[in-house]
Amino acid sequence: MSSPRQVFYISDRTGLTAENIGEALLNQFGNLSFKRHTHPFVDTPEKARAVVEKVNRSRQENGQRPIAFVSVVDDEIRRIIKGADAFQINFFETFLGLLEKELNTEATVSGQGHHSIGNTKRYDARMEAVNFSLNHDDGVSDKNLQEADVILMGVSRSGKTPTCLYLALQYGIRAANYPLIPDDLESADLPRMVKPYKDKLFGLTIQPERLQAIRQERRPNSAYARIDTCRSEVADAQSMFRRHGIPFANTTDKSVEELAVHILQACKLKRRF
Amino acid sequence: MSSPRQVFYISDRTGLTAENIGEALLNQFGNLSFKRHTHPFVDTPEKARAVVEKVNRSRQENGQRPIAFVSVVDDEIRRIIKGADAFQINFFETFLGLLEKELNTEATVSGQGHHSIGNTKRYDARMEAVNFSLNHDDGVSDKNLQEADVILMGVSRSGKTPTCLYLALQYGIRAANYPLIPDDLESADLPRMVKPYKDKLFGLTIQPERLQAIRQERRPNSAYARIDTCRSEVADAQSMFRRHGIPFANTTDKSVEELAVHILQACKLKRRF
Repeated sequence: MSSPRQVFYISDRTGLTAENIGEALLNQFGNLSFKRHTHPFVDTPEKARAVVEKVNRSRQENGQRPIAFVSVVDDEIRRIIKGADAFQINFFETFLGLLEKELNTEATVSGQGHHSIGNTKRYDARMEAVNFSLNHDDGVSDKNLQEADVILMGVSRSGKTPTCLYLALQYGIRAANYPLIPDDLESADLPRMVKPYKDKLFGLTIQPERLQAIRQERRPNSAYARIDTCRSEVADAQSMFRRHGIPFANTTDKSVEELAVHILQACKLKRRF
Repeated sequence: MSSPRQVFYISDRTGLTAENIGEALLNQFGNLSFKRHTHPFVDTPEKARAVVEKVNRSRQENGQRPIAFVSVVDDEIRRIIKGADAFQINFFETFLGLLEKELNTEATVSGQGHHSIGNTKRYDARMEAVNFSLNHDDGVSDKNLQEADVILMGVSRSGKTPTCLYLALQYGIRAANYPLIPDDLESADLPRMVKPYKDKLFGLTIQPERLQAIRQERRPNSAYARIDTCRSEVADAQSMFRRHGIPFANTTDKSVEELAVHILQACKLKRRF
């Protein structure tokens, strides 16, 4: 096996965008191996020159041209990075000119990145949503449940909490969650606490074997972690969702990002930012 | 003012990448207005044709060519989307061919997106980190604090919780947080609970006026929300950070994403995925 190809992510902001699209592209070359170097906040000429030096050194040491995914808004920084001896994929440069032509307007490059808050509205919405989700985690309180944008329900350890938090952080969605306990599952009715909010419910389900593994980790060799417990709880929860026409998704093979976007779509939720 | 230009984000996965880079690009045209339409999970030919129809209808209704940011891995879907009457920016197509040439390898297009979990390792790391952060929120427990990757400290409402959760969700980092209460701030020493973990500490500070606004929202007209309380707490916290050589950042103008990446860098934290 040949030595891994060096990959640099270079950005004058968080670099998350460069990384996301870079990883999606590299994923298409599953038979090759890559070694990644991440350089966020390269926002001064000095920092830019230091990164260029690093890239060039890597080129000499490895004999191969590194690959650089560059997402830099600032013109001067971009010019400096361009001098690095790497195969460069530059998101901004590639598309900005095309867009300027299509929009018939010159770009007014602003250092203010899209991740900056600018005004505090986005920050407020996010804080509020995160606090809401934390206060309504595991069905601890039905106070203000009418203010929830969505209520996730599912058996214990089906992935409700991370999904709620992701919805809050990423979209400012007020996501509460309600754990289905055996008492709930035995009843043909919806749990009393969430019944008034049927239109806000979204169900999470999970493969019993996976659930078993997660629960086993948490409470080894308990009744709670037994495979037949997991099987019957999951089956009961799914029947409940079907009986009451509650949309649901299987979390087993989905990442939190995928789940969140899926829930947004299914419940027609409006992002707060 | 002219009518807003229609913008479509089209993806066969979550569409988050297309949105991120699209928004960063559109941000460069601050004087224009855009109306956004998001179409994630366009993963069948039927869905793709429905989106094409939507784009074409928008073109007719608005008289202007919509702009479409397309991030589609699947060849067939991409071909269908291409038929839409829009100005298209296609992240995959633009760069994949270039990369194939540079890597001297043909891409083996896999529907398996970079956001899919594939194996469950990433999911496990994330769940563990989120649970850790929830269990160590607001300094409720010093149990297992030695297992924390980082401990954020700051005065009440300085933004610790969302930052911890983001670090956990995005990077699998075990982030605990410790709220500095007035008793802590009066002492010249570090709080007893976190003192053994000095190397893991990272401080958050905030503009007193902003803190006042946040606290006022939470407990209107309390001593806690008074501007002089906020000023002295923030000043004391910053002196503590400086006295003990604890790195810190101001959360006032930073988004959670920016803060998280900054903390990763400052504390040389290793992502778990």
